[in-house]
Amino acid sequence: MTGKRKILKEEILSSVAGDLAGIEKALADNLAPRLALVSDIAGHLLFSGGKRLRPLMMVLSARMCRCTDHDVIRFSTIFEYLHAATLLHDDVVDEAEMRRGKRAAHLTWGAAGVVLTGDFLLARSLSIAALTRKPDIIDIVAGITEAMSQGEIDQLDKKGKIDLSEQEYMAVIQAKTAVLIRGACRSGAVLAGADPDRVTALSDFGFHLGVAFQMADDLLDYTADVKTLGKNPGADIREGKLTLPLIHALARAGRDDRDKIEAMIKDPRLSAEAFEELAALLHHYGGIAYTQEKAREHVKEAKNCLEKFDPSRERDIMMMLADYAIARDL
Amino acid sequence: MTGKRKILKEEILSSVAGDLAGIEKALADNLAPRLALVSDIAGHLLFSGGKRLRPLMMVLSARMCRCTDHDVIRFSTIFEYLHAATLLHDDVVDEAEMRRGKRAAHLTWGAAGVVLTGDFLLARSLSIAALTRKPDIIDIVAGITEAMSQGEIDQLDKKGKIDLSEQEYMAVIQAKTAVLIRGACRSGAVLAGADPDRVTALSDFGFHLGVAFQMADDLLDYTADVKTLGKNPGADIREGKLTLPLIHALARAGRDDRDKIEAMIKDPRLSAEAFEELAALLHHYGGIAYTQEKAREHVKEAKNCLEKFDPSRERDIMMMLADYAIARDL
Repeated sequence: MTGKRKILKEEILSSVAGDLAGIEKALADNLAPRLALVSDIAGHLLFSGGKRLRPLMMVLSARMCRCTDHDVIRFSTIFEYLHAATLLHDDVVDEAEMRRGKRAAHLTWGAAGVVLTGDFLLARSLSIAALTRKPDIIDIVAGITEAMSQGEIDQLDKKGKIDLSEQEYMAVIQAKTAVLIRGACRSGAVLAGADPDRVTALSDFGFHLGVAFQMADDLLDYTADVKTLGKNPGADIREGKLTLPLIHALARAGRDDRDKIEAMIKDPRLSAEAFEELAALLHHYGGIAYTQEKAREHVKEAKNCLEKFDPSRERDIMMMLADYAIARDL
Repeated sequence: MTGKRKILKEEILSSVAGDLAGIEKALADNLAPRLALVSDIAGHLLFSGGKRLRPLMMVLSARMCRCTDHDVIRFSTIFEYLHAATLLHDDVVDEAEMRRGKRAAHLTWGAAGVVLTGDFLLARSLSIAALTRKPDIIDIVAGITEAMSQGEIDQLDKKGKIDLSEQEYMAVIQAKTAVLIRGACRSGAVLAGADPDRVTALSDFGFHLGVAFQMADDLLDYTADVKTLGKNPGADIREGKLTLPLIHALARAGRDDRDKIEAMIKDPRLSAEAFEELAALLHHYGGIAYTQEKAREHVKEAKNCLEKFDPSRERDIMMMLADYAIARDL
């Protein structure tokens, strides 16, 4: 872990320890008492070291708008359940082997149980959204669910598409990641009854942060080791997912290197050595640097959105979270 | 098709032809324009001869309560999308081969696309529920989704359980079928702004009808041919699903026949001849007659719930729908 990231993480964690403990408790409370199989499968993923970034963003957004609703912590679990539901279905769809440093759930419980548990978590998030009795929040949650499923289908549809454009990539990551974080921030502002300007500012913050976060995540697949990543590096390329570092490099590579990269994309059993070579090519053609730069730009835009709020402890933490999103082992 | 069923069907169809056409159009309108893959997969199931029973029940319930909302037809699609989403996921979970007389979708498009399309349809139903801006309807839809996913998990968990009790069977069919039909009827009453008594009466009607409908469906798996059923008979037993005819017969069979039946349950490749023998045993031990009787009792209870409403064309159709639910080729 780089020094900067470690300091940021410690500072954030110490600032939000109380909220995180509250979120953790609410996640467990809202799941129990359920069928044993659901608890096993959902718990395997839910309680294996997720960062609770999404619920935390909702809580902080609500607090920045002086929210007085005591149920904000409970409501924030909507976004972790929704996230977990997507991860479960994705792992089935991608036939993934690892998730958060653990064996993917479907390898232990079978695809059937995992698909149904994903459905259950999705339903749970909806039930909690209904508890808010706020049609605007229901709208947000329904919209997120719809966008995410379309994003995943879009991604599946484009699997192995060699000429995926940067624009197509952006559409996919917006739908599958940014929309959820945007919705979490937006819901916090709506719950607090904030004025439309602030609702929009926090939505935009979440959106840009989500884009930056996904770009950083996509970079990690080429730059991190298995321990940092919680899964094997190179999973994206082996699943035929073209991300920004690769798209940028492909557009700049000469004929020979482009042919070489394309052959690697088409090889689902790409060796560790070939993968190293690919990562080196992405560095060489500027794909890594370009993606880092784009992610930084989105973090900057995210932070700009917070300028219209008075300085506060919550705003400071949100700023730190924005920096943290890209301060990974790149 | 038996004579009674044919007459009922024609009478119902001619009475609701306008509404059915409206529902059909709304189902297509609310899906387009979508990604091609979604339209293909969702369309394959959605437009292959579903009876639209669930949306129809919502519309009729709303009309019985003098609903003036012009969007009732549009809102009623919630319950068909929700139903279709469940069917898609179920077929993946059960590794089914046929559905509504067609090859199951996952065999053509793969489990990944089908799981995600199910998610999309679920999301679509939520988005339409959100359009009602009525928290009570959102509550109902969220509750249905949660109950259904739990029912399916429960059923998966109990797969092959030889000593499944009638009580456990009832819990499964309530969650996986009756709750959805109950919710459709309840939502119609809520949309119309009906008083609590009527909301409850229509909910109970839907619930009993749903139970009867599922019992009749479970009977068909032992009594119908492939053409009537739209899939191969005997699917339940081959998937390890114990339904009421079998549960009742097992409890009454002597040692030898019980051993024979149990061996059949454990054989996923049960031959057509052995299946015929099983069906004969279920007749012999009264499992078929008992289930028919139970289904009839629930239809009677359903119809009783409608007594508190003034006579109307809609009430007549609902009564006919209740009869139709069990007037199958038993």
